[in-house]
Amino acid sequence: MATVKLWTDAEVSTSPRVQAVFDDIRATRKSDFVNNFWRALANQPALLERTWVSIKEVMVEPQTYPGALDPLTKELIYIAVSTANSCSYCVHSHTAAARAKGLTDQQHAEFLAVVGMAAETNAIVTALQVPVDPEFNVE
Amino acid sequence: MATVKLWTDAEVSTSPRVQAVFDDIRATRKSDFVNNFWRALANQPALLERTWVSIKEVMVEPQTYPGALDPLTKELIYIAVSTANSCSYCVHSHTAAARAKGLTDQQHAEFLAVVGMAAETNAIVTALQVPVDPEFNVE
Amino acid sequence: MATVKLWTDAEVSTSPRVQAVFDDIRATRKSDFVNNFWRALANQPALLERTWVSIKEVMVEPQTYPGALDPLTKELIYIAVSTANSCSYCVHSHTAAARAKGLTDQQHAEFLAVVGMAAETNAIVTALQVPVDPEFNVE
Amino acid sequence: MATVKLWTDAEVSTSPRVQAVFDDIRATRKSDFVNNFWRALANQPALLERTWVSIKEVMVEPQTYPGALDPLTKELIYIAVSTANSCSYCVHSHTAAARAKGLTDQQHAEFLAVVGMAAETNAIVTALQVPVDPEFNVE
Amino acid sequence: MATVKLWTDAEVSTSPRVQAVFDDIRATRKSDFVNNFWRALANQPALLERTWVSIKEVMVEPQTYPGALDPLTKELIYIAVSTANSCSYCVHSHTAAARAKGLTDQQHAEFLAVVGMAAETNAIVTALQVPVDPEFNVE
Amino acid sequence: MATVKLWTDAEVSTSPRVQAVFDDIRATRKSDFVNNFWRALANQPALLERTWVSIKEVMVEPQTYPGALDPLTKELIYIAVSTANSCSYCVHSHTAAARAKGLTDQQHAEFLAVVGMAAETNAIVTALQVPVDPEFNVE
Repeated sequence: MATVKLWTDAEVSTSPRVQAVFDDIRATRKSDFVNNFWRALANQPALLERTWVSIKEVMVEPQTYPGALDPLTKELIYIAVSTANSCSYCVHSHTAAARAKGLTDQQHAEFLAVVGMAAETNAIVTALQVPVDPEFNVE
Repeated sequence: MATVKLWTDAEVSTSPRVQAVFDDIRATRKSDFVNNFWRALANQPALLERTWVSIKEVMVEPQTYPGALDPLTKELIYIAVSTANSCSYCVHSHTAAARAKGLTDQQHAEFLAVVGMAAETNAIVTALQVPVDPEFNVE
Repeated sequence: MATVKLWTDAEVSTSPRVQAVFDDIRATRKSDFVNNFWRALANQPALLERTWVSIKEVMVEPQTYPGALDPLTKELIYIAVSTANSCSYCVHSHTAAARAKGLTDQQHAEFLAVVGMAAETNAIVTALQVPVDPEFNVE
Repeated sequence: MATVKLWTDAEVSTSPRVQAVFDDIRATRKSDFVNNFWRALANQPALLERTWVSIKEVMVEPQTYPGALDPLTKELIYIAVSTANSCSYCVHSHTAAARAKGLTDQQHAEFLAVVGMAAETNAIVTALQVPVDPEFNVE
Repeated sequence: MATVKLWTDAEVSTSPRVQAVFDDIRATRKSDFVNNFWRALANQPALLERTWVSIKEVMVEPQTYPGALDPLTKELIYIAVSTANSCSYCVHSHTAAARAKGLTDQQHAEFLAVVGMAAETNAIVTALQVPVDPEFNVE
Repeated sequence: MATVKLWTDAEVSTSPRVQAVFDDIRATRKSDFVNNFWRALANQPALLERTWVSIKEVMVEPQTYPGALDPLTKELIYIAVSTANSCSYCVHSHTAAARAKGLTDQQHAEFLAVVGMAAETNAIVTALQVPVDPEFNVE
């Protein structure tokens, strides 16, 4: 259950601002499916617009640094953050997105091993309060 | 400051078990530098050995799924988890490792954009308690 | 599903200590509805009593600093912490409480924008390990 | 120590894109002081620009929902998120910002009480896995 | 819903590697019940094997430091981490494990009080950015 | 650096309320040393009093459930939460407290192994979104 209403397509059609974003999501992704995240954001048209513009720029059609990171690598980084943040919805939606972008079972297995290893050593480092080596300093 | 003693090379030389791990770290990485994480773990030889074996298998010399994910992608996933876990030491040491594996400034910029975007949408999704779309279900 | 039993009103009536807290919750809030948090805490009467005393003092009837922060602001701070902690139940219950205290849709939209922005810059700051400016020092 | 270089004013002056953002930060805030967050972001001009535009819109000069939440309330929400995310820099910079916007010692005390209470009940709710009451559902 | 398939016993029987781990789980725990964590890991046999070996060594049959911490104390540490990480599944499975190892209602109540108190003071310490006392330094 | 002033003993002596708490801390712990946490809380006498009363009841002189959990076990639970919450100060102060209550190096090693293992499996469970087994349900 959500803390806000999830907009149906019929409700979306009553707001030109929301409809415009939904149209662009469908056109950009070449798919009729619009997931619940956008249906929840529809309650706040300004936030909906700003979020879609940002997601599109960073994850879907990067114009700033084209090709710096490939789309699948970006999805894995996204899932890693979502996992550490315990965001169930985000893990679900971006694992689906990663699969759609070609994630194989072996890559998923390697991803899980890295995420688990990072979480384990993070905890040990924090429990030991290891000081940063001066060799890692950039300044 | 750490919650445990950080072992100097002289202290390491007094424990054959610890010395053996340090020797393998230096040989595997082809570098004399051993960072503080290992010097803190030296207080617990069994944990030191298990952690090095795991890190080597997952991050340095993957035998299980060779080539599933490239070394730089794995470092980025590692930094993403460490960032979300607020592990300062881990962010420092693995950003240095990523640079050593070829991370460019443009890739770092893209990485930051993805991490920031994931954190922002994670928070919004959680505040809205968006329910998982049935389309994302694997079962 | 919970890791403990949720007490029904019939079960509450068998324990004078638990019944007394439930009576005070109902009288203080002027409502018969007692949410699951208290029904779960009923398994530990001492923790139930201490938690209700604290919540009442801080959130419902502040005696220490009356008027320092208005009730709606305190609910927004509560939801912000709960969101960053990924506490689904807490986000649900305190968003409902905020609405009952007058949260408008525009305020909710602003709240979401601030929470999202804070999460994004938190992540970027952590990934960059920005050192604290001496200007921010109080000592 | 940071994972990137912190740009001095002299270095900023070598990049028109970065200089333009720094000029706008100084003009908007009516202060010559530019804190380290922006000096670290200067390494990534595109991210610097996007972040400043967003922060300005949400925190400094809200155009979308003017007056929905007052500036001090937004800073408190920001600190609450930063506290739960353990972002030391963010807690420092936004506590300073809140003080500049009028935060009193009594309000700070109330804020700490709410943040502490939220963190405590978040942990207890999570340990008990309390299910969401149907009364909190919006759908 | 999971992001991967949960293996039934029939599916397990088609993979000798997975079957071997499931057999050892059942023999070690002296119970036919194998919980969903292992059925999800079955998709990645190498990760399944490594995780079971580690869990067995640390939680079930410690060989390295026998008797250093008793089994119930280790389960409580596990639940504490899982609670702070908001891992619902982990809280459920290890609270059940703790009960199976003798956790009483009074111990659970004490545990909840400590976890809540730690979360509260963690948040206040972070909001105040209290510097570490030199008396706590080990070096 | 802190976001508030740390009170010196001379400053404490100017406030009878703060002095009374400091006196009780010293008498209860049988030590003249008062750590920075209390010197930071001194800015908010009401929060200082409430926090000390709670800490004393839960961690130092439990009256509600005497003997339910031994003092060292409670410190380990506290450090586990503080580690997962990345609270550097809390990890330092409670590791020192645990040592003062008899924590041995072998117990610390076992603790680190459990904390690391819990963090690793938490992350994997979250990335896989493993559903809770009905066998773990209490209701």
